[in-house]
Amino acid sequence: MRVNIINIGDELLIGQVTNTNASWMAQQLTANGCMVTDIVCIADRREAIEKALVHSLQQADVVLITGGLGPTKDDITKKTLCDYFHSTLVEDEASLRNIERIFAGRGYPMTETNRMQALVPACCKVIVNTVGTAPCMWFETDGKTVVSMPGVPSEMKHLMSGEILPRLQKMNDGLCILQKNLIFQGIGESFLSDRIESWETALPSHIGVAYLPQHGMLRLRLTATGTDRAALQRQLEEESRKLYGLSGEYILGEDRESLQEIAAEALRRHGRTLSSAESCTGGAIASRLTAMPGASQYFKGGVVAYSNELKRQLLNVKAETLEKHGAVSEETVREMVEGVRNVCRTDFAVATTGIAGPDGGTPDKPVGTVWIGVASEKRTVTKLLHFSDQRAQVIERTCNQVFSELIKLIRESCGK
Amino acid sequence: MRVNIINIGDELLIGQVTNTNASWMAQQLTANGCMVTDIVCIADRREAIEKALVHSLQQADVVLITGGLGPTKDDITKKTLCDYFHSTLVEDEASLRNIERIFAGRGYPMTETNRMQALVPACCKVIVNTVGTAPCMWFETDGKTVVSMPGVPSEMKHLMSGEILPRLQKMNDGLCILQKNLIFQGIGESFLSDRIESWETALPSHIGVAYLPQHGMLRLRLTATGTDRAALQRQLEEESRKLYGLSGEYILGEDRESLQEIAAEALRRHGRTLSSAESCTGGAIASRLTAMPGASQYFKGGVVAYSNELKRQLLNVKAETLEKHGAVSEETVREMVEGVRNVCRTDFAVATTGIAGPDGGTPDKPVGTVWIGVASEKRTVTKLLHFSDQRAQVIERTCNQVFSELIKLIRESCGK
Repeated sequence: MRVNIINIGDELLIGQVTNTNASWMAQQLTANGCMVTDIVCIADRREAIEKALVHSLQQADVVLITGGLGPTKDDITKKTLCDYFHSTLVEDEASLRNIERIFAGRGYPMTETNRMQALVPACCKVIVNTVGTAPCMWFETDGKTVVSMPGVPSEMKHLMSGEILPRLQKMNDGLCILQKNLIFQGIGESFLSDRIESWETALPSHIGVAYLPQHGMLRLRLTATGTDRAALQRQLEEESRKLYGLSGEYILGEDRESLQEIAAEALRRHGRTLSSAESCTGGAIASRLTAMPGASQYFKGGVVAYSNELKRQLLNVKAETLEKHGAVSEETVREMVEGVRNVCRTDFAVATTGIAGPDGGTPDKPVGTVWIGVASEKRTVTKLLHFSDQRAQVIERTCNQVFSELIKLIRESCGK
Repeated sequence: MRVNIINIGDELLIGQVTNTNASWMAQQLTANGCMVTDIVCIADRREAIEKALVHSLQQADVVLITGGLGPTKDDITKKTLCDYFHSTLVEDEASLRNIERIFAGRGYPMTETNRMQALVPACCKVIVNTVGTAPCMWFETDGKTVVSMPGVPSEMKHLMSGEILPRLQKMNDGLCILQKNLIFQGIGESFLSDRIESWETALPSHIGVAYLPQHGMLRLRLTATGTDRAALQRQLEEESRKLYGLSGEYILGEDRESLQEIAAEALRRHGRTLSSAESCTGGAIASRLTAMPGASQYFKGGVVAYSNELKRQLLNVKAETLEKHGAVSEETVREMVEGVRNVCRTDFAVATTGIAGPDGGTPDKPVGTVWIGVASEKRTVTKLLHFSDQRAQVIERTCNQVFSELIKLIRESCGK
């Protein structure tokens, strides 16, 4: 089933907002067996909406429209669709109740403008939007489907997940697309591809592979298309087992978005704790860990030791070490990671020290030189990294390397 | 001048990548006096590219195309454009030299496939892409312009900033759009709008205003359109001076993207230092500061005191305080911020403690309850915040509030 997405909103065309709705929708639609043909962003203008709708109905079986459903007069999607379908606006009882309920909950008085949000074209089926005031409208026309929903991301996602995707799935004759992601680290895209070439060639035609490298890690995504969900699931498991056989030593986890999720999950499963001592990553490691709910179960905290004084004072790095080897050295990162593990009394610890740039490089230690360390009770592992990227990428890649080494050390210490 | 953007790439249509190129381009084009009419994302398919091109040339004066210029066979933009313009591919000498230079720098051997990237349609003007191997191609057809450039964000940005925008600016008869951003904090959108209503009404018609609220701060963007850049600049300064007169007490800075930039700039200007003690923000404050180049000039570091032990041990928060008032309390945040300032020996310090959720709330202290503190040598300011958002937003908003209070305290201590 071919789906076109139309995102309506002036804010998209002046670049004030990045269109994250489109990527989320495209991802969900793809996972539900739909093929997204076009994504079009247009202004809140009648002619633009009409043109995009005509164009999209030529291309696709289903047109999903977001945005332009607010109560103010610059939002004209509803009126435009109503005219397009030669319909008239009528008050939808259920939507009105919903709006009243939302205003009662907020303790705000409801105005006439708010009440008008319950008006919908008589020809559409209404899906009540329980998390917002703008109703979702479902139109059918000449065997094709047009759905208009709010552009507020949380409302769009709620409606898509709860109502629209299940209906599309049904219309799609039960076709489903299942995905499985394997996260590799320590092997380049082309090396992996060489290594698993015969496996890839032997894959059944309904299973596809994508290589998704990102900041020093590599996601391999298997996508299986078919109608028998259970069988697809089994086949994906089977194929991923083969991958473990071929290159399992590089696989850090599956079906997670990030390395910190894999690390967190391992710490939680084994009931172990972690602390961090960050210089060049400046809090990025702690921040990624604590961005995940429940981080306090395994993360005790740590030190952002940006200055040498703090490395000495809070982490017990020796003045002599700093003087003799410098802040960016194996010796320093070792004392940092062991220091923070002792100070915080955790099972594991991680540390970073390096030159993220753009300034601070020397001929000996150019920008992008980074030492990382991970430590358990039994041993400390250090690693020298060289990056040739911008500051943000150096930080990002360093974090990924740290989490990779941590995952390996947890496995070594606690088992898989 | 009307501009259409076409972003080519399968990864956009399966939602693997968020289209940040489009928002960046739209922002730059708007700032350079262009009106973006449509943004279209399409697959790497010949018919899709042709259709989008025909459609865009009907709509706009200029069509900017990104993507599909890689060396592999799935990238077909160049071939499609060549056929569309009834041209043939010829080797471009300057592009070939550029590719050779890049490969020499990387120390990789150059293959025939790489060499083929120097082929371009004979009818186009080539803009050499000095940061990548795919040349940028500039076509003129029936008074309209089509530009094809790589989709790699860093290459696209380099070409847009250095080559394409200046040419479009010239074609645009020198029309320019200047913007000025004022960052407000502590006043809601509608309150500010009431307060500056008469100013807004009296604005000349070529200056527009947009209210851009974001995570507890509010950006007011003035946009001036005209041909006399110096005059527009003067007018924007004049109007913003009036805004300072009307509500200057809420203005924290101008022409910066974020509050941490304003805080960093103030610290640097006054030669002062900062440290941080973070519980609920878990390193996000330190991480935002250290994401900016040169942070080590003013940021010494800090402690991520996620556990109570670390609050006691590293920040000298009294066990008694934690027991009597709890970790999320004014007393604790006060001891944290004063503790970290003493331990790190900095001029200023900031601290956070709260319940970011989704778990950990109590009837007394529900999820979203946050205490923040900022301290100078002379005084400590604490503030209680209540948020009703998701974890990520609680962290985001807390950071913004911390930086706001810090900016105020620096101004109070050091002058503007």
